[in-house]
Amino acid sequence: MSKPAEQLDIASTMQGIGRAARRAAAELARVATADKNNALRRAAGHLREQSRRILDANAKDISAATEHRLSAAMLDRLRLDPARIEAMAEGLEAIAELPDPVGEQIDQWRRPNGLLIQRVRVPLGVIGIIYESRPNVTADAAALCIKSGNAVILRGGSESYFSSRAIHACLVDALQETGLPPDAVQMVPTVDRAAVGYLLRDMTAYVDVVVPRGGRNLIARVQRDARVPVLGHLEGICHVFVERSADADKAVAIVVNAKMRRTGICGAAETLLLDEALDVAVARRVMSALIDAGCELRGDARACELDDRVVCASDEDWGHEFLDAVIAVRFVDGVGGAVAHIARFGSGHTEAIVTEDRAAAQRFLGEVDSAIVMHNASTQFADGGEFGMGAEIGIATGKLHARGPVGAQQLTSYKYVVRGDGQTRL
Amino acid sequence: MSKPAEQLDIASTMQGIGRAARRAAAELARVATADKNNALRRAAGHLREQSRRILDANAKDISAATEHRLSAAMLDRLRLDPARIEAMAEGLEAIAELPDPVGEQIDQWRRPNGLLIQRVRVPLGVIGIIYESRPNVTADAAALCIKSGNAVILRGGSESYFSSRAIHACLVDALQETGLPPDAVQMVPTVDRAAVGYLLRDMTAYVDVVVPRGGRNLIARVQRDARVPVLGHLEGICHVFVERSADADKAVAIVVNAKMRRTGICGAAETLLLDEALDVAVARRVMSALIDAGCELRGDARACELDDRVVCASDEDWGHEFLDAVIAVRFVDGVGGAVAHIARFGSGHTEAIVTEDRAAAQRFLGEVDSAIVMHNASTQFADGGEFGMGAEIGIATGKLHARGPVGAQQLTSYKYVVRGDGQTRL
Repeated sequence: MSKPAEQLDIASTMQGIGRAARRAAAELARVATADKNNALRRAAGHLREQSRRILDANAKDISAATEHRLSAAMLDRLRLDPARIEAMAEGLEAIAELPDPVGEQIDQWRRPNGLLIQRVRVPLGVIGIIYESRPNVTADAAALCIKSGNAVILRGGSESYFSSRAIHACLVDALQETGLPPDAVQMVPTVDRAAVGYLLRDMTAYVDVVVPRGGRNLIARVQRDARVPVLGHLEGICHVFVERSADADKAVAIVVNAKMRRTGICGAAETLLLDEALDVAVARRVMSALIDAGCELRGDARACELDDRVVCASDEDWGHEFLDAVIAVRFVDGVGGAVAHIARFGSGHTEAIVTEDRAAAQRFLGEVDSAIVMHNASTQFADGGEFGMGAEIGIATGKLHARGPVGAQQLTSYKYVVRGDGQTRL
Repeated sequence: MSKPAEQLDIASTMQGIGRAARRAAAELARVATADKNNALRRAAGHLREQSRRILDANAKDISAATEHRLSAAMLDRLRLDPARIEAMAEGLEAIAELPDPVGEQIDQWRRPNGLLIQRVRVPLGVIGIIYESRPNVTADAAALCIKSGNAVILRGGSESYFSSRAIHACLVDALQETGLPPDAVQMVPTVDRAAVGYLLRDMTAYVDVVVPRGGRNLIARVQRDARVPVLGHLEGICHVFVERSADADKAVAIVVNAKMRRTGICGAAETLLLDEALDVAVARRVMSALIDAGCELRGDARACELDDRVVCASDEDWGHEFLDAVIAVRFVDGVGGAVAHIARFGSGHTEAIVTEDRAAAQRFLGEVDSAIVMHNASTQFADGGEFGMGAEIGIATGKLHARGPVGAQQLTSYKYVVRGDGQTRL
């Protein structure tokens, strides 16, 4: 906790950031597409040119993190190398290539009295991003905000402070050189945690939406404390359901990929549902393939019977986010059983069915109420890049406004433009 | 304030309503379009058949309201007659005629790996509606919710309790007779105000969004206390700007209609902005027309100079919602001046420009950041019915999710449907 004197300072610092962001947002909302894309390409160039400086800053963060005994997984997320910097730069260029969502006409109709009504995309305004150790979020999130005409206030974790600051400098230089408002991308200049509370609760006049990027604790805190809307998700409890008429080869490939490609991401499968009417040999093959790939299986009675390498599941294993090489396995009664299990234990993120039966697929896709539902594909495709959005600022499971991968288009709202010729209302 | 014993009862009543609504929402999300439309048409029939019973119930409300000395305006909003019941019935039939938003494919694209990604509309879930004295909100709001596949919890004002209950009975009968879940439209069975607090704060597990319909006090309370997203607006400070190249006849017709057609609705103009370069004769004509129509003008120094019937405006008149035959009048320096005045004093609801200059119109439409911006048309068109949505559940000024008139389509979200052929992620 910080002392009162420091809080006072944080309040005035944050108010200043908020006011500047609001001004920059009004300016950025009117910037031409070409100018925004120029700024993004220039920022990519700066990342490449300044890679030495960014790596030096990262080395400072890494040495502090090593001292504080951060986990290997945390260190891996924090560590930058030339390839990761190049990937960041390419990410900015990919976002520059995307169509500009701002000004896009979503819909248009004419009323009997001649009024023409158009629905047009506009930026949201000012977006607050609170993230943890990944320094690349600085570049990705800022780029998506610039592209969508939004100003952004970045609040990175203390672990990645120097790395994020070096990346931020590249972005601000690019904005300045291309005549865009540099305050469109601001970084909170303190690691004091009171700044996060201030951003969540006391800046409703300046911040339109908050996006948390990080672990469950961070997201739960943001969802609890925020006085502005939050785009994000708490957990990714993704299910893969292998239906009775699944193709065995597709089932094996999809299940192993959905669980094991990367076990620590939100789109990784956490529960495998097997149709009770599925051929026993296929069920055995799918489970064996997982075990052979190094995965621990926690199964119901039937799964344990079929393969004695399966551990008996406890009640806590259903709906549990392992984020590791562990998966819960349960037999269910067809699509209805799978839908019911997902409704009870899912988190509304991503669910997949493997089947060759179109009617079964259609029922699953229709009845499962998640942001992303898939037929014959791996849940690990739940990602803005894989969706063709260039990058993503997160995956939203709330049903208001944005749902699924949040890219530049999802960072916009719309307004109605009405064109008349003197119509007055009866 | 209610006593603890009563609060306990409210808690269990409201929890029961919430659980039933959630179940009904899951069922209603899958109901066929034809069945929903049948239920709406049947409800219209019941309103007509039961009009005697509805009028009797309304008479009870009116006599209580007269006893409690409610204002004439409140009594007018509360009073039903055969024509108003017929209008409600026709409203239900108009909503039945609209296309079903649920299942509508908003977007579709294919990825290089063959994955087909579709964005499809789905219901929001459970919608809570808190309204005051207008009994017709019961029918309109419930019908929009049914059409959009959402369950609704209605909490009407104590003044319209008996009227709303009689209308509610028609809707429930129609749901039952057509095989739809009757719990899809529930009414809070108490006028205890504690129920509103409970609905706003303690039902996040059951309620997805709250819509307040009523005066400023109600909406401010809902925005302050709600723990779920709120669709709505606090004030409608609508501006009409008459630009230098306006057509004089259109300017007169639009300004008088925007202010005087009905002064008590949120789309009524509250401030008239006149271009400093506007022909003096045209400015005089517009002001005279308003005064002749019975409107009080509160003007800046220049407006007072032009017509001595104009009262001098005070600072509080800018951005004030008169909801009466009063308008503030100010001269501004062209489109830039109008945009700046609106940014400072507007409420993001509806703004109109009158001009024959397309470039000036385009700049105004682009730079004014309101839910609805109009060119050469009256702000009183800011209405779901006038937009062709059949009815509206309100006008939203927030930029997340829905903005402008909220009809059936705006009560839906979307999910992504991904169709593959065994794709796994690299």
